[in-house]
Amino acid sequence: MSLLVVGSVGLDTVETPHGKVEEVLGGAATYFSCAAALFGPVRLVGVVGTDFPSEHRDFLARRGVDLSGLVVAPGKTFRWSGRYEPDMNERRTLSIELNVFGEVEPQIPREFFSGENASPFLFLANGSPRLHLRVLDRVERPGFVVADTMDHWLESDREGVLAVLSRIDGIVLNDAEARVLAGEHNLIRAARWILRQGPSVAIVKKGEHGSLLVTEGEIVPMPSYPVENVVDPTGAGDSFAGGLMGYLAANGSPGPESLRRALVYGTVIASFNIEAFSLDRLREIERRDVEERVERFRRLLSF
Amino acid sequence: MSLLVVGSVGLDTVETPHGKVEEVLGGAATYFSCAAALFGPVRLVGVVGTDFPSEHRDFLARRGVDLSGLVVAPGKTFRWSGRYEPDMNERRTLSIELNVFGEVEPQIPREFFSGENASPFLFLANGSPRLHLRVLDRVERPGFVVADTMDHWLESDREGVLAVLSRIDGIVLNDAEARVLAGEHNLIRAARWILRQGPSVAIVKKGEHGSLLVTEGEIVPMPSYPVENVVDPTGAGDSFAGGLMGYLAANGSPGPESLRRALVYGTVIASFNIEAFSLDRLREIERRDVEERVERFRRLLSF
Repeated sequence: MSLLVVGSVGLDTVETPHGKVEEVLGGAATYFSCAAALFGPVRLVGVVGTDFPSEHRDFLARRGVDLSGLVVAPGKTFRWSGRYEPDMNERRTLSIELNVFGEVEPQIPREFFSGENASPFLFLANGSPRLHLRVLDRVERPGFVVADTMDHWLESDREGVLAVLSRIDGIVLNDAEARVLAGEHNLIRAARWILRQGPSVAIVKKGEHGSLLVTEGEIVPMPSYPVENVVDPTGAGDSFAGGLMGYLAANGSPGPESLRRALVYGTVIASFNIEAFSLDRLREIERRDVEERVERFRRLLSF
Repeated sequence: MSLLVVGSVGLDTVETPHGKVEEVLGGAATYFSCAAALFGPVRLVGVVGTDFPSEHRDFLARRGVDLSGLVVAPGKTFRWSGRYEPDMNERRTLSIELNVFGEVEPQIPREFFSGENASPFLFLANGSPRLHLRVLDRVERPGFVVADTMDHWLESDREGVLAVLSRIDGIVLNDAEARVLAGEHNLIRAARWILRQGPSVAIVKKGEHGSLLVTEGEIVPMPSYPVENVVDPTGAGDSFAGGLMGYLAANGSPGPESLRRALVYGTVIASFNIEAFSLDRLREIERRDVEERVERFRRLLSF
């Protein structure tokens, strides 16, 4: 079953203790769709400027990402620049230029959400709650909608975040965000508070410490897959979400077992992603690399 | 096979967002031995003052802890007082009174380490590196020695810590300590650095985020068992180590599979421990409660 993602596609400048890259392929929807495409068809809805290099389009298309919803608007592509401190958990955003991503509303082709070829799985990558709500207004309710959020929106538009929560099935957010949103330190209790706002699934990302999946019936703690050489954490959360949703979309219903397995796939794909700058590692890997690492992870966690 | 622990037995005053308890049973060796006793015989070597309540002795003895190595010295028992901030990961030590624990060297009964009833498993609970070295000098080399350490010693006696490392099989320490000791942010690389100093097993405790077991051949990431209501984290690390070593001692050799399973038992016992103040939860549970939770944990981590 196909998967639709709405979010940013951009050019990143990133500095980590391992080096610096400039104006490389980035953006939440890019990482997400590239990870999800390992499992099946993905449709990317977003906006880039006329300066967006055609090689990036070609790469995404080769990966199997449907780009018919990627609008090219007059102007410059979204740009982000950041630096990671030596401990790699601390990220400093140095600059954000929304450019066309802030000016032009993404347009969702009708066939993506309506009719027999509609995508039953939808991911709202990090973006403003207002954009998420407009997408939700437009899309005929698909089977399973998951959204990401970000501290920025929790502070600037809490109302909007809560309105989104009331209309989605799952939320993916990081630990600090979950704590702020729920006003609760214990992550399980924070996730339960979030579930009371609407979604049936809350997934809390904890960076190097893995993630926590909370539903009404289950609390699944998932460690991260051990990576010795973390080169660039950018996109870890988005590739995690992409692996998770890609697996779910490919395997149908989001029941407890599927969700647990999807969590593992997300975890493993994120572990590849952080081994190189930009999407360089995701470019190289195939589904069988993922399966091999999932198998190794299973052995590590069996007792 | 029996297990010997050398370390502190004391009286704690603890404040958490859930309340405050005064002069309750505490001490690293106490938590450790109470946890380990769920699996088999434990011998506790330590020193208390004449003010140590006999009810605590009785409780430990009933739990199956051999107290013939617990010296009662003239003077006061070791006391520790601390407070946890709302996020429960932040602990402030308010006061430490070493009392007899700082004045009287623990005496290890000869039969504990020599002859056919010697304990093949030894745990050196948090204490000065000098004490650990004197114990290692005295004990005829048992099968498997694991030590704990603490930031205080890394700063005040790094030489001593390195000398201990060169003479033990395993080390248990928390993430911040591993990073300081190795001068390395990535925990896997920090653990590998530690292994190069001597031990064949390094176990990094990450509080609510679980632990990481690193040997030459394997890196096992273990999440914590999800606990919604953390009442008092005191003794989490020591009960974790007690469960781990108790399981290993009861099951013989510390091979890769035993170690993984021991890690799970440690994790589960720590999850009970933090559900109440002092050793109150460890007082209540039986081996079957532990097995039930291990089984639930196995289901959560199966995919």
